[in-house]
Amino acid sequence: MERLKIGFIGLGGRGQGLLSNVLKNFKDVDVVALCDSYTDRVENAVKKVYEANKTTAKAYTEAKELLQDKEVNFVLISASWEAHVPLAIAAMKTGKVTALEVGGAYSIEDCWALVRTYEETKTPFVFLENCCYGKEELLITSMVRKGLFGEISYCHGAYFHDLRAEICGGLKNRHYRLRNYLTRNCDNYPTHNLGPIAKLLNINRGNRMLTLSSFSSKSRGLSEFVKGKEEYAFLQDKHFAQGDVVITNITCADGTLITLKLDTCLPHAYSREFMVSGTKAYYNDCGKVLWLDDKKLNHDIDINVFNNTVNEYEEHLPAIWKSITQEQIDAGHGGMDTLMLEDVFQKALHNEEMPIDVYDAASWMVITALSEQSIAMGGAPVSIPDFTSGNWLMRESKDVIDLS
Amino acid sequence: MERLKIGFIGLGGRGQGLLSNVLKNFKDVDVVALCDSYTDRVENAVKKVYEANKTTAKAYTEAKELLQDKEVNFVLISASWEAHVPLAIAAMKTGKVTALEVGGAYSIEDCWALVRTYEETKTPFVFLENCCYGKEELLITSMVRKGLFGEISYCHGAYFHDLRAEICGGLKNRHYRLRNYLTRNCDNYPTHNLGPIAKLLNINRGNRMLTLSSFSSKSRGLSEFVKGKEEYAFLQDKHFAQGDVVITNITCADGTLITLKLDTCLPHAYSREFMVSGTKAYYNDCGKVLWLDDKKLNHDIDINVFNNTVNEYEEHLPAIWKSITQEQIDAGHGGMDTLMLEDVFQKALHNEEMPIDVYDAASWMVITALSEQSIAMGGAPVSIPDFTSGNWLMRESKDVIDLS
Repeated sequence: MERLKIGFIGLGGRGQGLLSNVLKNFKDVDVVALCDSYTDRVENAVKKVYEANKTTAKAYTEAKELLQDKEVNFVLISASWEAHVPLAIAAMKTGKVTALEVGGAYSIEDCWALVRTYEETKTPFVFLENCCYGKEELLITSMVRKGLFGEISYCHGAYFHDLRAEICGGLKNRHYRLRNYLTRNCDNYPTHNLGPIAKLLNINRGNRMLTLSSFSSKSRGLSEFVKGKEEYAFLQDKHFAQGDVVITNITCADGTLITLKLDTCLPHAYSREFMVSGTKAYYNDCGKVLWLDDKKLNHDIDINVFNNTVNEYEEHLPAIWKSITQEQIDAGHGGMDTLMLEDVFQKALHNEEMPIDVYDAASWMVITALSEQSIAMGGAPVSIPDFTSGNWLMRESKDVIDLS
Repeated sequence: MERLKIGFIGLGGRGQGLLSNVLKNFKDVDVVALCDSYTDRVENAVKKVYEANKTTAKAYTEAKELLQDKEVNFVLISASWEAHVPLAIAAMKTGKVTALEVGGAYSIEDCWALVRTYEETKTPFVFLENCCYGKEELLITSMVRKGLFGEISYCHGAYFHDLRAEICGGLKNRHYRLRNYLTRNCDNYPTHNLGPIAKLLNINRGNRMLTLSSFSSKSRGLSEFVKGKEEYAFLQDKHFAQGDVVITNITCADGTLITLKLDTCLPHAYSREFMVSGTKAYYNDCGKVLWLDDKKLNHDIDINVFNNTVNEYEEHLPAIWKSITQEQIDAGHGGMDTLMLEDVFQKALHNEEMPIDVYDAASWMVITALSEQSIAMGGAPVSIPDFTSGNWLMRESKDVIDLS
């Protein structure tokens, strides 16, 4: 492939954000086609492309038409959660490089369909989990690879993001979250926290997730949030199925335990609560705490008095984070978006193995469907499919980027 | 009762610590009898009492003999975990006020036996969970009572304490932990974190814990810790049954979800990770973060940039924490021990209802036995007995101390 010619499918908040990033930071990538079922979104996007590049991208309101556009050789899908899997499958069948924005799955079968389509078409597929390029996530993974953490026993992560206004504004902003929160109860967005942990633990590459068990709290945050507010009049008498907090426990073949937390309906600041516990070290994103056993001072001190903060360990940061510019950082999600797109575009251009593949996508997205089942059954453990069909035993550990 | 005349049963590390505290801070309480199966411990304790009070406490090596001592009217039990329930039952049968140090239970039946004995004898019984008197725990509970947190959806707590040296030194220091870690896998010490949360959530008083599900990580921390160390030669070839990290999910009648973490075999600083999530506020002991919704600045900031720290809210601290002296703080566990003993001694003297009763003790201690069952069954949810036999519906909310 000489040059990437991108078609965007889905131009809501995330699609527009990624489009802006591509236009600003990737001058050697062409944006040739734009699609959304809402015409105003497509018109805005066409305008944005023209302003940046003085080129006119083709406008579509039907994804299948964009997928038939011969000029497009790279499809970036950031549609509603419900549309992700069908669109990715349709895109892979055209042979165009398929980049899928994150979200959870609605059924186990959908995840298998994604895997089967990839295995039949061999179309390059990448799951756009930007948090796999997070600074702390890569720093700690790099230190784990160097043996500084010893053996890992436990990891924790969260999608701890107060989304009350976004969810409840769903009708106005045409957001898919609202219908999901009204009718489903699950970890509906597991991959921002699970993704980096799964990479660190070599999931699908020498290790795999075996079982899952999920629990939900009551649902009160959204009802309290809309109460008496005129702008949310249509939600006053609605019952939200989604619990305020969902905890998911995942057991792995190597004996590691993972817990995930979804907390999007209660007030608090943002965090992914990235936490890694090994036999030689401990990291907690809350406080950016790094505890190295061989540097310990005193075990009986308060956790707020730390022996090391991660800042001292920036030598272990991968090169992409050492050379990042302020402009790249400002372009989206603190720099993760730009680093991810750069990596994905380079690998697509040179036909290299994608950093986050269809097995990663299937096994991370399925957590949503399985957590829904487990919660409905009172927290009963359910098995997590092996989407590699045994190949995880042979597949070698590989990080999204070289961490050596 | 005119004057408390205490008999100590169990003079290991904790027993000696409580004895020192009583001798130093409670001059109107008499220490009249001391018992431990190790004679050297009893001799040391007798010496300590003489040095402090110029009185000679009676020495026993058999608990049943101390329990027959007519002079003793208050028994403080801090023996091995295995001996706690039988000793507490025997003590209640003598009619002496029975104060039981914390630990987990080995069976559901043991917890029922504790409850039945109390209900038959009506002997005053108190469970010595000092963390119910913790500064942050009482501050946040006080704010919850004032409505500042809205409705609570989720609480989290941990016993996050690197005990590797204490556990592995078990033969030398005659500690009961070693045999438990070698042969059991459970949340063996749930009450330091669960106790304050259960109080906050009105467990057994209008609310109750319904089900529990527990998961364990692999066991590596202790094996790695002893590897190649001469002082732990006897442990080189031993397998530890206890997983490094155990996560327990507890569902409550009011829809609140609780997670508990036990992490005592890996390196890190100490924390109880006390965390409370409500519809109006969020507290996290990591960073001492208090997020009040009506004071929010910006939702999309990093969790390390907080809108409020708890220090601004000390006005909500209960009186006992406002008037605490440095001497009391230094006497054990940052002041909690002294505040607890003061409260318990006063209530025993005036025959008032005990702050942490037999229903609290049974429902908190049973978590250990139930987590062991659930882990063994792959995380299957198990039901938590209602030790109040339905009376939790009528029992009114009551904090360890007045928080109004």
